[in-house]
Amino acid sequence: MTDLKTELATIRAQLDLRLNQALPIPNDLTARVIEAMRYSAIGGGKALRPFFILTTGRLLGVKEEDLWPIAVSLEMIHTYSLIHDDLPAMDNDSLRRGKPSNHIQFDEATAILAGDALLTKAFEHLSSPNWQIDDEKKCRLISLLSCYAGTQGMIGGQMIDLIGEKQSLTLSELKQMQRLKTGALLEFSCIAPCVLASCDSIKETALRRYATCIGLLFQMTDDILDETGQEALVGKTLGKDRKAKKTTFISLFGLEKARETARQLEEEAVQSVAVFGENNLLSAMAHYILIREK
Amino acid sequence: MTDLKTELATIRAQLDLRLNQALPIPNDLTARVIEAMRYSAIGGGKALRPFFILTTGRLLGVKEEDLWPIAVSLEMIHTYSLIHDDLPAMDNDSLRRGKPSNHIQFDEATAILAGDALLTKAFEHLSSPNWQIDDEKKCRLISLLSCYAGTQGMIGGQMIDLIGEKQSLTLSELKQMQRLKTGALLEFSCIAPCVLASCDSIKETALRRYATCIGLLFQMTDDILDETGQEALVGKTLGKDRKAKKTTFISLFGLEKARETARQLEEEAVQSVAVFGENNLLSAMAHYILIREK
Repeated sequence: MTDLKTELATIRAQLDLRLNQALPIPNDLTARVIEAMRYSAIGGGKALRPFFILTTGRLLGVKEEDLWPIAVSLEMIHTYSLIHDDLPAMDNDSLRRGKPSNHIQFDEATAILAGDALLTKAFEHLSSPNWQIDDEKKCRLISLLSCYAGTQGMIGGQMIDLIGEKQSLTLSELKQMQRLKTGALLEFSCIAPCVLASCDSIKETALRRYATCIGLLFQMTDDILDETGQEALVGKTLGKDRKAKKTTFISLFGLEKARETARQLEEEAVQSVAVFGENNLLSAMAHYILIREK
Repeated sequence: MTDLKTELATIRAQLDLRLNQALPIPNDLTARVIEAMRYSAIGGGKALRPFFILTTGRLLGVKEEDLWPIAVSLEMIHTYSLIHDDLPAMDNDSLRRGKPSNHIQFDEATAILAGDALLTKAFEHLSSPNWQIDDEKKCRLISLLSCYAGTQGMIGGQMIDLIGEKQSLTLSELKQMQRLKTGALLEFSCIAPCVLASCDSIKETALRRYATCIGLLFQMTDDILDETGQEALVGKTLGKDRKAKKTTFISLFGLEKARETARQLEEEAVQSVAVFGENNLLSAMAHYILIREK
């Protein structure tokens, strides 16, 4: 666990350096939107998605330098989704990562633009001629990321989540929502490096299975934290699902069943990546997500 | 002018067919966001940007089939920007293209997601393996479009526009806003086909000059219409700039000077593309924008 925490801190620091480079502040009135992008993107969060990209990429023998553009772009997309999710018309959340949400710190209009701009910047970053990999691979990654981030991925999950605030969901709808809303980008982060590696099918299958488990595990522990977590630790408003009477795994099956399912998902995630050796960082991360308090 | 109107109608019809194919309605709860995307993207608007892509592309000898993915993606990005622009936190406009704005027809949260999804889908479309052009060209187009649509382009212009609602702009800030907000995507639509053509530098320079003029001309006639147009024809709320006491070219120099500048821009646009022969569709379009009533 110490190794994992050190690794996460190292990745966060490196990520911030690269985000800082990718988002320079211009000397004109457009500076305001860049400042809003930087406010939410730099320095906050656990950098889980970059961690998965860097870690699976290294396990597959990909050069670290080739992995960073994917990590930076993905973090931009994750950040945009948080900014838009927090808007009054969406989750209406004024607290994120322990500080005021983007639209509180700036204003709603700027937050909408900052989100749009981070999403746009992600694709600018992935298509950059400065990234020294084959254009064919760039196109495959852009195609993959836009699928995982779009209506068949994250946005689709957000749509179902919104509908779930107004009507109760069936179990299969709930599962689809979980798989898409948080799961999609986490899955992408575990499998994207395969595009850059001459990846044998055993390893790729292992990573896909791990990715699915991690996506579901993360959503499950998110629901558990919403019910039982400490706001000061988690850094966002909690207890909202119950207040909004949303269908969650917990509302359907209770807290104990959710905890048990989370444990099973962690076990399956760990087993999936046994092919990369015992005590690898991916197993450690599955455990970290299971027991996380934030 | 008859040729131009026929051409615009043909392009609109073809564009709708392709948008319809690109946005199939799934048989699950995510359908709602796709319906919102389709509501704003299909059937509305003059399809100016697709017109420029198709027309300049043909003048450069590019196969029409290769041009459509750019036209469809660009229209998706233009549409997302209108959806987000109409939101209560932005322009708060309930009328667009003569029908209720997206957030009125659906709701604010769905409109935010539909905009995000159209932006994401644009890059999925451009990176599609079904588009039979070199990956190197795809990457160049994705890079170009994300620049023109981002903080150095359209979003930057929107940011300056928002700031202009709260403080008066200098002439150079106003010009930057005009160049970016509407100008950027129009410019892109005139020059993007150069990536697919073995374009000689005389033609490329001509198109760039034309593109700049068209971007400014369109913004200028937009400001004039906001002041003098008929709402029923234009299909959106008018008179808003004056009400909001925004700095526009008209507030700085008056209506007559704006009309004169528009005429000069049209003349320069027409001169720029004389290299493609007299009475070409690009000259006709410059004139059409000058005298437009909607």
